[in-house]
Amino acid sequence: MASWLPIPSKSHFSLANIPFGIISTSAEPRHRPAIAIGQHILDLSVFAQNNGFSKLADFPSDQLKVFSQTTLNDFAALGRPVHRATRAYLQDIFRQETPYPEILKDNDSLQKQALVPIGDVQSHLPLSIGDYTDFFAGRNHAHTVGTLFRGAANALQPNYNHLPVAYHGRASSVVVSGTPLHRPWGQVLPNPQAKEPVFQPCARLDIELELGMFISKGNKLGAPVDVNNAEEYIFGYVLMNDWSARDIQQWDPWVVLADALEGFRGKGLENEVPPKKYLAEKREDSILDINLEVSITTAKGNKTKITQVSSQNLLWSWPQMIAHHSVSGCNLRTGDLLGSGTISGLEAGTQGSLLEQTMGGKQFVKLEGGEERKFIQDGDSITITGWSGTADDGLVGFGECEGTIIAAVPRD
Amino acid sequence: MASWLPIPSKSHFSLANIPFGIISTSAEPRHRPAIAIGQHILDLSVFAQNNGFSKLADFPSDQLKVFSQTTLNDFAALGRPVHRATRAYLQDIFRQETPYPEILKDNDSLQKQALVPIGDVQSHLPLSIGDYTDFFAGRNHAHTVGTLFRGAANALQPNYNHLPVAYHGRASSVVVSGTPLHRPWGQVLPNPQAKEPVFQPCARLDIELELGMFISKGNKLGAPVDVNNAEEYIFGYVLMNDWSARDIQQWDPWVVLADALEGFRGKGLENEVPPKKYLAEKREDSILDINLEVSITTAKGNKTKITQVSSQNLLWSWPQMIAHHSVSGCNLRTGDLLGSGTISGLEAGTQGSLLEQTMGGKQFVKLEGGEERKFIQDGDSITITGWSGTADDGLVGFGECEGTIIAAVPRD
Repeated sequence: MASWLPIPSKSHFSLANIPFGIISTSAEPRHRPAIAIGQHILDLSVFAQNNGFSKLADFPSDQLKVFSQTTLNDFAALGRPVHRATRAYLQDIFRQETPYPEILKDNDSLQKQALVPIGDVQSHLPLSIGDYTDFFAGRNHAHTVGTLFRGAANALQPNYNHLPVAYHGRASSVVVSGTPLHRPWGQVLPNPQAKEPVFQPCARLDIELELGMFISKGNKLGAPVDVNNAEEYIFGYVLMNDWSARDIQQWDPWVVLADALEGFRGKGLENEVPPKKYLAEKREDSILDINLEVSITTAKGNKTKITQVSSQNLLWSWPQMIAHHSVSGCNLRTGDLLGSGTISGLEAGTQGSLLEQTMGGKQFVKLEGGEERKFIQDGDSITITGWSGTADDGLVGFGECEGTIIAAVPRD
Repeated sequence: MASWLPIPSKSHFSLANIPFGIISTSAEPRHRPAIAIGQHILDLSVFAQNNGFSKLADFPSDQLKVFSQTTLNDFAALGRPVHRATRAYLQDIFRQETPYPEILKDNDSLQKQALVPIGDVQSHLPLSIGDYTDFFAGRNHAHTVGTLFRGAANALQPNYNHLPVAYHGRASSVVVSGTPLHRPWGQVLPNPQAKEPVFQPCARLDIELELGMFISKGNKLGAPVDVNNAEEYIFGYVLMNDWSARDIQQWDPWVVLADALEGFRGKGLENEVPPKKYLAEKREDSILDINLEVSITTAKGNKTKITQVSSQNLLWSWPQMIAHHSVSGCNLRTGDLLGSGTISGLEAGTQGSLLEQTMGGKQFVKLEGGEERKFIQDGDSITITGWSGTADDGLVGFGECEGTIIAAVPRD
């Protein structure tokens, strides 16, 4: 799919992608929706106000105001058929042989107003998050960490293969890529034999490579979602770094719509336990297939790729997580964020946390320039990236999720 | 403190209270702020629009719009000095010898518009909740339940006396008093020896008697709250029933402001572990003193009081919970809800859950009419109530928090 707008072949934001986000510029500090395309963003607020969507038939005409909101919640709440039509329409707008050249391709004035170099915009949290639930669907991670803590015989909790385990997290502490984070203080036992905890900056600060998923439409309290209809409740995905011991989730600011990843799916990890009926999926390719990488850049400037792994290293699919989350009658709402849990392979270089890579802090991970790490040091910067597809067909990628740890706030 | 408005002496909503809530009426379905006073509510939206607050000096004049919002968040965010001044002013308005008789006492027209019998209004969630954190500060509950599960020697987890333990809960599933709840489905082990869980309606549905607290102003990410300044972050309190195995928190709809309970405080449970500096409070009376009761009404109509206990059965105070919650740098936001954890004494009839009263389901709780319970049955209705003070001085109470369990939704 070629575009009249120059898009570098290795761009994560090809015509096959069309991720949505919330941006501001120095000229216009108001937060507003945008899509990323190549090295530009299209300001959807300006685009909508200038009849940009006038040829989009499958859009509720009284809902164009969703593009002037400060979050994507109202757009997400319109549901997946509307997201699908909007993305396809924007692909048409940017296609080389666009059926609507008058809208943007031949409209220099609107291009000047609505197309902004991506380096000139600031990205913000794309949705206002109601609740954040972090699952634990990466069985390799669960098994490796469980073995470290409880031995191989008891690595997985007894319920692990029967249902997608999760915990509820805080929505307030979700921050966007690029936000620097202070090392946290906390009470810890100075050694395993100690009886008295000490109050000190966290010494074993870690990362967790995850995917995040946003809910588009909610379900009513008491009305569970059917696993085979759960895809309709998905808005899109982000890359996420679940900073461990920090209670902070950090992500890339572009939401890749569910439809953009529809072609990149396969089987996940094999589950020897037959799923209960409410978790039994008809489709067999329900696990996303995304290439994921984690790099660490030290304060000295040495950058090392420490993880390369496929997102198929999950035991449970997003529809299964939604079905289980709602089976008790629990209601999900537009903007709720679900985390996959740490995604890890079993071999060296495929694990999504330092805890696994260092065998619980027992061995060093070797970095470029002769450096080494057991856990994150002050000044370390972590970059997560992920993409599907090929440069020929156009990459569907997330950009980068980056965060730097700075020293703990001094306390007396 | 006598009022020109007739207030029954046993009313929870005396002139000494002035709790805030969100109401609607059949004539005006818009949600709007109100206070409860005796057998009436004062519609603050109508009151503000008719110069009701014109004599209130200590109120930012451009902020009167907070009384026309659909939640109390904007009012809560104004901070405790404003809440204090507003409550004191409303007490002046209703006082027998009010300094401003022209505002309401002698203003029949405004009385007719703004004073509504409490039975004629519907109550709603008073604040839009960002995050919900449920603490576990009721040490008697923790000890009794820990003994049931792990034996007396390991009843409390090693960190229990060192810091206020909590878990993050869902904000979406908080519902107001009176909402009926379906018995939830879930996967459970049919017996302790079983290897395979079964999917069935919850058989051990329980209640948990708690207090809830709303945050008024937030702290910035990375900026912890000082324990001795944490009272300034408290908006007010509600009674809460944390339906166990249901992931539902249900509460009474009236928020009793922090200032209304300022006179009802004392010591909590003794902690043999000296608190770390960030948890060390200067004041010694930081635990609220509220009389709490739980009653069960069966489908047959038999009503039995099963719990009577003081809220002083807590190990940690609200300021300590706030200080610990934010010590890692975690940000709290206006409208965040914190739960105390189950409040229980150690003797029969003082325990805030059936799990404790039945020794883990081993013995029955005797009810009126010859009925008995181990856990909640379909058709059972639970009522929680709580108050401080005396009828002579005016009760400061919460009204009632009521919920009925109905049968599980049928599933194939």
